[in-house]
Amino acid sequence: MQLGTPKDRLDSSLADVSALLQKHRVLESLTHRQEGARKDLLERLQHQQNLVELQSRCAKLHPADMAYILESLPTGDRELVWRQTPAALKGAVLVEVADAVRASLLSATDRRTLVEALRALPADDLASLEGRINTRVWKQVWRELDPAKLTALQQATAYPDDVVGAVMRRDAVAIRDTATAAEALADLRSRGPLPAHLDLVCVVDVRNVLRGVITTADLATRDAGAQVAAVMNTDPVVFAADEATDAAVRAFERYDVVSAPIIDDRGKLVGRLTSDAVIDHIRAEADRVALAQAGLHRDEDLFAPVLDSARNRWLWLLVNLVTAFLASRVIGLFEDAIVQLVALAALMPIVASIGGNTGNQTVALVIRGLALNQLQKGAGRHLIRKELKVSLLNGLLWGSVMGVCAYAIYGSAALGFVMMAAMLLNLVVAAVVGVIVPVALYRAGRDPAHGASVLLTFVTDSMGFLLFLGLARVFLM
Amino acid sequence: MQLGTPKDRLDSSLADVSALLQKHRVLESLTHRQEGARKDLLERLQHQQNLVELQSRCAKLHPADMAYILESLPTGDRELVWRQTPAALKGAVLVEVADAVRASLLSATDRRTLVEALRALPADDLASLEGRINTRVWKQVWRELDPAKLTALQQATAYPDDVVGAVMRRDAVAIRDTATAAEALADLRSRGPLPAHLDLVCVVDVRNVLRGVITTADLATRDAGAQVAAVMNTDPVVFAADEATDAAVRAFERYDVVSAPIIDDRGKLVGRLTSDAVIDHIRAEADRVALAQAGLHRDEDLFAPVLDSARNRWLWLLVNLVTAFLASRVIGLFEDAIVQLVALAALMPIVASIGGNTGNQTVALVIRGLALNQLQKGAGRHLIRKELKVSLLNGLLWGSVMGVCAYAIYGSAALGFVMMAAMLLNLVVAAVVGVIVPVALYRAGRDPAHGASVLLTFVTDSMGFLLFLGLARVFLM
Repeated sequence: MQLGTPKDRLDSSLADVSALLQKHRVLESLTHRQEGARKDLLERLQHQQNLVELQSRCAKLHPADMAYILESLPTGDRELVWRQTPAALKGAVLVEVADAVRASLLSATDRRTLVEALRALPADDLASLEGRINTRVWKQVWRELDPAKLTALQQATAYPDDVVGAVMRRDAVAIRDTATAAEALADLRSRGPLPAHLDLVCVVDVRNVLRGVITTADLATRDAGAQVAAVMNTDPVVFAADEATDAAVRAFERYDVVSAPIIDDRGKLVGRLTSDAVIDHIRAEADRVALAQAGLHRDEDLFAPVLDSARNRWLWLLVNLVTAFLASRVIGLFEDAIVQLVALAALMPIVASIGGNTGNQTVALVIRGLALNQLQKGAGRHLIRKELKVSLLNGLLWGSVMGVCAYAIYGSAALGFVMMAAMLLNLVVAAVVGVIVPVALYRAGRDPAHGASVLLTFVTDSMGFLLFLGLARVFLM
Repeated sequence: MQLGTPKDRLDSSLADVSALLQKHRVLESLTHRQEGARKDLLERLQHQQNLVELQSRCAKLHPADMAYILESLPTGDRELVWRQTPAALKGAVLVEVADAVRASLLSATDRRTLVEALRALPADDLASLEGRINTRVWKQVWRELDPAKLTALQQATAYPDDVVGAVMRRDAVAIRDTATAAEALADLRSRGPLPAHLDLVCVVDVRNVLRGVITTADLATRDAGAQVAAVMNTDPVVFAADEATDAAVRAFERYDVVSAPIIDDRGKLVGRLTSDAVIDHIRAEADRVALAQAGLHRDEDLFAPVLDSARNRWLWLLVNLVTAFLASRVIGLFEDAIVQLVALAALMPIVASIGGNTGNQTVALVIRGLALNQLQKGAGRHLIRKELKVSLLNGLLWGSVMGVCAYAIYGSAALGFVMMAAMLLNLVVAAVVGVIVPVALYRAGRDPAHGASVLLTFVTDSMGFLLFLGLARVFLM
């Protein structure tokens, strides 16, 4: 048995591939330099040999490792390695690779190769690529599938994206509730290779209705004559195929299960939810939220073409330009005050920015509470009251600090007071808006991770300028 | 078998508890109103009965559900329900509940009850609470543990927090490499109840060195006489106990495993990493990053006391006040220019804020690339070049748009040009700083999710003011 943890092995795979790529580039630059002249045959052969070496190194990799290596490589190198990837591995790599990187691989693959690679995939894997492949290629794959796999694919793509049915495996193993342990094991043995990750076996009645589950470990260590129905767990964690994936995943986490049977609306066994699908879902959600908070709509390939990257960021830039522009119009209303007391121009961004910062803390907590379903009826009002108190406390404290700073710099006690009052009021605004905006987005069926922050910042910027400059006009002019 | 998905059941549990609490509050208010007068005996009895009902409802809940319900309740209700929670459930609930909520439960529990609840926990669960319990209570628990559990606890707390050893289970099941399938099963049967989530059995030699693994399903369905050593998987995914948890979790995800054996530095089997621990780790990391991006250092109980919440946010507020103050000093340097042309005061926040927004997009992408280990040597320079090109493109496009807007409002072509140039330059600054700051934090061994954004915003704000007002002084004065 090889020792060495997966990380060590992966790092060494990546180092090998990088070294071969480096060698390839050196050889290529030599060849290019002699372009036009009689090329050194020996060098070309060496070049060829290097590519073969790269090919054989790639053939030995796990598809997930291959995907990881491709994700880590800049576009040119990535295509070179992809061309050396054995055809048999290509389909599995396309399943594993990040969405943004998949696009670059797809565009570097000719249609025939692609159709062959996809056709060879199991139906569940193929289903996970639905909507991520060019429609013409996708249709051709459907046309060329054998009937059994086509049926499986149709079933796998029948559920909407956000329900358990779309992420479940269809390879749940069921035994009859009338069997003894020995009969059940004999039954399993007769079916040939069992699916991967099989920690439990489902027990069904004659109509395929789920009656309970038994772990494979339990089944294996029971007396041969034990009735499965008598020793099974009759109250396992079960999900419905049309249940929201988010809710199912939270329950899966809460009860620390490894896999769970999935039933349709008549209680019949249709599949199972496994921990790898749950892990993928949690990771994808976390990545999506982290990127959404920075206004990135979709996963972006770090090495994507410049124009693609620029476009991915346009909507967010536009939204922020519009809100910044509107907030700046508030300042425009007070130009006379600023001309009279230019210190206002220097101090006003502090009031605006501190409102945005504290408001975003509230937004982050509320979004988290919403995701955990902790904001029950009545809790919202309680939370606003609490955030109001926190903001009053922080506003008095930090407002006073900044008031004293303003007084120290500009020597005006009145200016210090205006600074304090504006900060206090803007923190209060931030607290209220920080609770209301994500809750309102959530209730309206929108994802609060998109947009809550930009809306909040717009309000705290505008109100920060309005409160500070307005108070200044009233008390200082 | 009960049907109804976990979510349905949990929602109904929460609804039941809430209804009982509501009834409790009504009864309590009736009792209070009659305070001093002769209290209605019947009402007090009813009150008592209601609490008993609450108690029996709680006793039937899964600890994770109980934790969830406690997290969803405001502090007063939470303590009431906690007091009705059966002692036998309390330890398990403390393990499951969120850190921030645990604090409030601990402070509402008397020391004796707490020590008893903790003593009853399995060693691995108890180990997960290390550092989260008052030291005096913790020491008393240690003193009162039986020797076997104490040894297990010492082993479980021997590893640093961030390595696999700290999150592994110690209940890996091992069989000898000389056994046949039937002997291995008989061996397992003789050991009494098997640990939960046992999808695979480890195969070890006489010195407990890991030789391979075999899934329980495979073991159960092999011929009785098959040699385990001949049919086992000799190249499974294995982790080292002193390996970083983050790296192990990424590999666990990549290879879609359900559990993996863990070995020490001599190759001996010491435990196993299970999917529930991996899921907990991923979720905790994602939550931590989401909160860190908003400057919240630790998990915050939505219903925490006001002063606790205010304190949790002070450091971030202070840091942001200091940076906002320093950026505002840049404006102070140009007060003469602003007095001459007050339009500058209105336009300058746009330049600063758009720099911060685009820079934070870059930061989010870079942090993601770092977490996925995609930024190999050389890739950093490639990425800066790419981000520079994206920012030049976006700067020219959106800078021109805002330049035209500025010209349209203030009628000065020169002002429009200054606006365009300042935006373009600030986007370039944002691109470079957006790559360099998270990479530098990462290389210095710091977590880029903390602090990258605030550092970036400080630079883009200051540079935004400096570039815009500086260009204005050169070209417009």
